[in-house]
Amino acid sequence: MREIVIGGAQMGAIQKADTREAVVDRMIVLLDQAKAAGCDLVVYPELALTTFFPRWFIDNQSEVDFWFENEMPNAATAPLFAAAKKAQIAISFGYAERTQDGHYYNTSVLTDRDANIIGTYRKVHLPGHSEYDPERSFQHLEKRYFEPGNLGFPVWKNLNARMGMCICNDRRWPEVYREMGLQGVELVMLGYNTPTVNSQLSDEGIEQRLYHSELSMTAGAYQNATWVVGIAKAGLEDGHPLMAGSIIVDPNGYVVARASSEVDELVVHACDMDACTFGKTTIFDFGRHRRIEHYQRIGTQAGVVIND
Amino acid sequence: MREIVIGGAQMGAIQKADTREAVVDRMIVLLDQAKAAGCDLVVYPELALTTFFPRWFIDNQSEVDFWFENEMPNAATAPLFAAAKKAQIAISFGYAERTQDGHYYNTSVLTDRDANIIGTYRKVHLPGHSEYDPERSFQHLEKRYFEPGNLGFPVWKNLNARMGMCICNDRRWPEVYREMGLQGVELVMLGYNTPTVNSQLSDEGIEQRLYHSELSMTAGAYQNATWVVGIAKAGLEDGHPLMAGSIIVDPNGYVVARASSEVDELVVHACDMDACTFGKTTIFDFGRHRRIEHYQRIGTQAGVVIND
Repeated sequence: MREIVIGGAQMGAIQKADTREAVVDRMIVLLDQAKAAGCDLVVYPELALTTFFPRWFIDNQSEVDFWFENEMPNAATAPLFAAAKKAQIAISFGYAERTQDGHYYNTSVLTDRDANIIGTYRKVHLPGHSEYDPERSFQHLEKRYFEPGNLGFPVWKNLNARMGMCICNDRRWPEVYREMGLQGVELVMLGYNTPTVNSQLSDEGIEQRLYHSELSMTAGAYQNATWVVGIAKAGLEDGHPLMAGSIIVDPNGYVVARASSEVDELVVHACDMDACTFGKTTIFDFGRHRRIEHYQRIGTQAGVVIND
Repeated sequence: MREIVIGGAQMGAIQKADTREAVVDRMIVLLDQAKAAGCDLVVYPELALTTFFPRWFIDNQSEVDFWFENEMPNAATAPLFAAAKKAQIAISFGYAERTQDGHYYNTSVLTDRDANIIGTYRKVHLPGHSEYDPERSFQHLEKRYFEPGNLGFPVWKNLNARMGMCICNDRRWPEVYREMGLQGVELVMLGYNTPTVNSQLSDEGIEQRLYHSELSMTAGAYQNATWVVGIAKAGLEDGHPLMAGSIIVDPNGYVVARASSEVDELVVHACDMDACTFGKTTIFDFGRHRRIEHYQRIGTQAGVVIND
């Protein structure tokens, strides 16, 4: 038994006008709840410090830069790091990263119990588009504001378990879980900001969008015998709804904990990392069963090639 | 609208003592039902012509050879091919294949409306083990009787759609759907013989086994925007239960038709191949979103490599 008590810290809406300081205060309230619940690790959403700004078209680069952090921790987030260290709780959260040499990423970090950053992930699968699209009901400009992540899908040892991260749209891609599965991952953490409405298919409906989100995470968990923690930023941001549906999924692909609101809410589950062993040593014993000679398109061909 | 009316021909148990001829008669009854229902294509299970013989340990090679077909079609299956041609219905079914040069595969074939075999698939992911295992509640000797398939995951144009096949345990591996997805597949057909009991975890239960089967197929359908038809051989074969749960899944990952029995049963759905287009051109537009530079472990590393 290697139990990690995980707190999934779903966050409600963050308005454009909300300051980082006000948001960090909310994150610390959730951390305090996690401490009271005996958590070892707290997972916050994607872009946890700000509103989901890629829904807005911004032409002026200095206005874009306002949404990015130039270092981490920084003045606004220092209280969160201090509180996490004091509570001896590891944390993971997402933010918009501007590097010293001027690159822009949709990033998440992972700390140890002393609030040292031991892992950085940069979102690989950027959804949406890069130019203003008049045909959409709202914009989704992640391809404009971010570069695709350049760090792959690393796995780190933390709290005596193997942990990896991905972000939002990454969760729909089986390659993401598999790359980490091939490094023995036992816990995949991810945050998301998923609009309740499909900007290209307005009648899709929230039930279908929640189903696709859960389907992707439960399949990724089962097929790699890993825990998956998927945490939403939810609610109405300046009139734009984000879906909730934060879940913790066990290595059998079952949802074992689920948020019930669209506001700040802590979801807690005691996760036994040893529960990964059965799947990893039987049906998904990769070394015994995988046949890489037949997977050559996956890593060499990005798009569809028709051979009619 | 490119509609193909698909009949999923679930089959009940086949006992060791049942002849190929008796089984083919049952397959023709299902074909007749499909004709009456207006089907264009009928999908039968894995190893449709015989009992699931890999549950038995057989030492004598001539006894093993009894379960294999040396050519296809052959005398026993000729009436099925003739009936399919007369009905102008394309078919797909599985059987144990012994090649002219002495190789053994778990195979499925696909025909056009004139019963010409236009596609052959050989199962890549063989589950189970190769030697007698006294610790299992029953045997699963696919790794003993078959070689891993050597044809990859081809996609063929048939009935004006792009079709591929996989078999049973293949359906749990996301690489399988993705290899076909990268060739533009619109319909994945598969048959299975899945024991109701996990031979290494007797308290797993049929509900969990049905869930994992459906989870794998619905995720594969959604993540590649393809129809998936998964058809069981079900029921009690010489005392050994096989689970049922045959389903037809749409390109959104929803089950649209489902078998309700554990016996011979035809499940019918009119499948519009154009329903694949939305997913393939938006969220799963592979050429726009996939980042193959970060998928390099998948095709180069079979087993887990720990980097602690």
